Amino acid sequence: MTGRKTIDLNADLGESFGQYTIGNDAAMLDVVTSANVACGFHGGDPEVMAATFALARAKGVAAGAHPGFPDLWGFGRRVMPFSTGEIERIVAYQVGAARALAAYAGHRMTYVKAHGALGNLTERDPAVAEAVIEAVRRVDPALPVVAIALSHLERIGRARGMTIFSEIFADRAYTEDGHLVPRKEPGAVLHDAAFAADRVVRMVRAGAIETVSGRMLPTQIDTICVHGDNAESVTVARLTRARLEAAGIALRALT
Amino acid sequence: MTGRKTIDLNADLGESFGQYTIGNDAAMLDVVTSANVACGFHGGDPEVMAATFALARAKGVAAGAHPGFPDLWGFGRRVMPFSTGEIERIVAYQVGAARALAAYAGHRMTYVKAHGALGNLTERDPAVAEAVIEAVRRVDPALPVVAIALSHLERIGRARGMTIFSEIFADRAYTEDGHLVPRKEPGAVLHDAAFAADRVVRMVRAGAIETVSGRMLPTQIDTICVHGDNAESVTVARLTRARLEAAGIALRALT
Amino acid sequence: MTGRKTIDLNADLGESFGQYTIGNDAAMLDVVTSANVACGFHGGDPEVMAATFALARAKGVAAGAHPGFPDLWGFGRRVMPFSTGEIERIVAYQVGAARALAAYAGHRMTYVKAHGALGNLTERDPAVAEAVIEAVRRVDPALPVVAIALSHLERIGRARGMTIFSEIFADRAYTEDGHLVPRKEPGAVLHDAAFAADRVVRMVRAGAIETVSGRMLPTQIDTICVHGDNAESVTVARLTRARLEAAGIALRALT
Amino acid sequence: MTGRKTIDLNADLGESFGQYTIGNDAAMLDVVTSANVACGFHGGDPEVMAATFALARAKGVAAGAHPGFPDLWGFGRRVMPFSTGEIERIVAYQVGAARALAAYAGHRMTYVKAHGALGNLTERDPAVAEAVIEAVRRVDPALPVVAIALSHLERIGRARGMTIFSEIFADRAYTEDGHLVPRKEPGAVLHDAAFAADRVVRMVRAGAIETVSGRMLPTQIDTICVHGDNAESVTVARLTRARLEAAGIALRALT
Repeated sequence: MTGRKTIDLNADLGESFGQYTIGNDAAMLDVVTSANVACGFHGGDPEVMAATFALARAKGVAAGAHPGFPDLWGFGRRVMPFSTGEIERIVAYQVGAARALAAYAGHRMTYVKAHGALGNLTERDPAVAEAVIEAVRRVDPALPVVAIALSHLERIGRARGMTIFSEIFADRAYTEDGHLVPRKEPGAVLHDAAFAADRVVRMVRAGAIETVSGRMLPTQIDTICVHGDNAESVTVARLTRARLEAAGIALRALT
Repeated sequence: MTGRKTIDLNADLGESFGQYTIGNDAAMLDVVTSANVACGFHGGDPEVMAATFALARAKGVAAGAHPGFPDLWGFGRRVMPFSTGEIERIVAYQVGAARALAAYAGHRMTYVKAHGALGNLTERDPAVAEAVIEAVRRVDPALPVVAIALSHLERIGRARGMTIFSEIFADRAYTEDGHLVPRKEPGAVLHDAAFAADRVVRMVRAGAIETVSGRMLPTQIDTICVHGDNAESVTVARLTRARLEAAGIALRALT
Repeated sequence: MTGRKTIDLNADLGESFGQYTIGNDAAMLDVVTSANVACGFHGGDPEVMAATFALARAKGVAAGAHPGFPDLWGFGRRVMPFSTGEIERIVAYQVGAARALAAYAGHRMTYVKAHGALGNLTERDPAVAEAVIEAVRRVDPALPVVAIALSHLERIGRARGMTIFSEIFADRAYTEDGHLVPRKEPGAVLHDAAFAADRVVRMVRAGAIETVSGRMLPTQIDTICVHGDNAESVTVARLTRARLEAAGIALRALT
Repeated sequence: MTGRKTIDLNADLGESFGQYTIGNDAAMLDVVTSANVACGFHGGDPEVMAATFALARAKGVAAGAHPGFPDLWGFGRRVMPFSTGEIERIVAYQVGAARALAAYAGHRMTYVKAHGALGNLTERDPAVAEAVIEAVRRVDPALPVVAIALSHLERIGRARGMTIFSEIFADRAYTEDGHLVPRKEPGAVLHDAAFAADRVVRMVRAGAIETVSGRMLPTQIDTICVHGDNAESVTVARLTRARLEAAGIALRALT
């Protein structure tokens, strides 16, 4: 695999709920090329979803469904005790809701990316990865799925003939196996915006994940996940975009 | 307008939630030709929805989305304080979720019918009728909407160029204006199954609503709503189907 | 320990929600001496709670709080990913709500019994048992707690100086260690009402749990759990009461 | 009625939910003498409640229950279609939950103040005022209730023999009848912190509400409501406290 000339930048957005605001959506929609829109289970509500799809459309940002566990209280970050069959149904439900509200807002929902604890499970639990693929495939086999690079989701999705967009993280360290350093461990999150942004450029150019030791693990890279939770993460996102453009890598949504 | 050679029979189904069972879905799916499937807001959940769509498909019954107010506690029977804009978004959300779960279950969601308090508002409040039409139109302008005969929803939907299926009720008395006798008034619900079934045959043949006094008000009739809440209503539903068939009117879904 | 001259009979009640009815509360309130009232997290709602406390009072039945995981969809039967600290707070919250609605209904909430998956955890997980005891102790150290006989909850509660009511099950088989045979295994639930009822009499008389092999394990027995989910379980409950009374063991609430 | 030598300052707190933060609780707990703690229906959750009660206790701030409509999505600001009987039960439930979590946190819940749309109804709808009084009276007739000065709640509560704390608002304009100028009207909210704070001092000294025209309407004043939603409101709150103290009126919780 070789490096790309264009790359996608995605972020989780539309996670506010009623009077509760979270994230810096307006700022992030000026940085990313793809918006993962929460579907009302772990965050978001029909009002927020419609507004987010409308704003993404106005700013020329692609939009995807961002389904999570039905756990507003825990923001989708807890592993809920659902069977893989139940996961299929909650994913299908949310993908449908997002597709309809995107259409309602004059936009299109063009991919699916699982959120939080559900997304993490798709990296390491093949049964959950299989469930997410099965849900999307049954709803619409042409709908692309964003998968963490080197995850079970990526492998199973490709094996099932689905379109998979492989994702790396701008602000997370990688183990020597190419997996995310667990958040509890020191150094898991990169706080140096310049280092993070430059590392992204190296990874995209090389078509490889850069581990903590600096080793490069060749893999497909289609999209880069950035965050907008706080001022620091917005800075990382902006700098990542700037350094990519300076390096001649155009930002472009995948769809 | 003249009477039809075929008619559709619809019922509200899939309103159970988790361990809570409501209605006689299996029995009703042997009687009706269209199943209005609850979408998880006033009743139903992703498990119940997928199972109901799958069973409807297995029995050759058409399936529609049955969106309601987000009020599981009140079963969608309370008028919730939502703006018409908010109603648009909650309808769009639910229609999308239902469409996706129908596809997931190998079936198709082929129409929309509003539930409970929301459905009642579409009869008498033109702004709410407009909101429901707008929501469906934006999600998919080709998607038919079931509307109470002589309602604002029917009138506005046709004016907007939408496909509207006009509906009468098998077990509800009609005022001289062709509206439902309010439930609080005596005689609002017909308990005599034979009378109710025969009245349906007369209405379908005449293409007219039969009022309490026996007056016939010509109107389009595409589908008949029956209920499955209790043994009595199931009996009315079965007898209605039998009498229609005996009268040479075939039962057939509209889609 | 020796057998008791009086015994308490408890059942889980008040688990309906809005229009969704579950269980045979009216029938069971004529059989039991203590009603475990759901608190709105796994089942029940403020209307159901108030009505259940009022009916219990009218029938002279004692009433306890029956807190569970916040999981209406799963009816509290799934182990939710809560820390022990979070469990303390959800138990305290529900106990307070139940106490207030009991007072509202002119009754008193006189004990606490954990529901479903939470209750099962208190049998086998000492940290969860500790959390439930801590929650009740902080809210009201004089409030008794119902604990499965031979459970961690029973042991820890007594060690903390709390009043613990030890509970056996009328329709569940016991392993040679005195624990419940898991529901998945054959013979876990006793379907022979006469056998179940007679076994209860033997256990209460002996002050001992009777295992599958007939071995008697001496233990404190204060209350017997019966169920009202279906016709069979109501029959077991009624026969258990009748056989106890015939054996000269009076039914009496513990409080 | 004459002016007071001491006065209470109250604010709505503990309205965050899970990962969603709202308000400036830590800052406000250094300003107010009473914290109205949300009870999980319109905002708050058991974690937030316990933490807020614990922090209030640590800072020597009194704590009350702040029940609202079960409407997290609308933050309790929408009038929900509940009967007065249902309002009684949801108030009782929340008061109980708050009392238990206060005890859990080592604090005491010493009053009740209704939130948002529910609170507004108690001002102008005597049936709702009656329901709130009835709920509190049945749960604990000694529990004080905070009521908007000149409201139906104030009048009915006193007539029923309950302890009522009369409340005025630091940042809201008053009509010539002594009622709040509706938020939609210009001038409803005072943005000039110095004017607002000085007006409070005048009102407390005079034991009277100051209307828009400067007229003074004598009435009982026990507590002043301040807000912590944004920087401006926190400034008003701080200045109100400072001016009261400078005027020799000590800040002291009512309980």
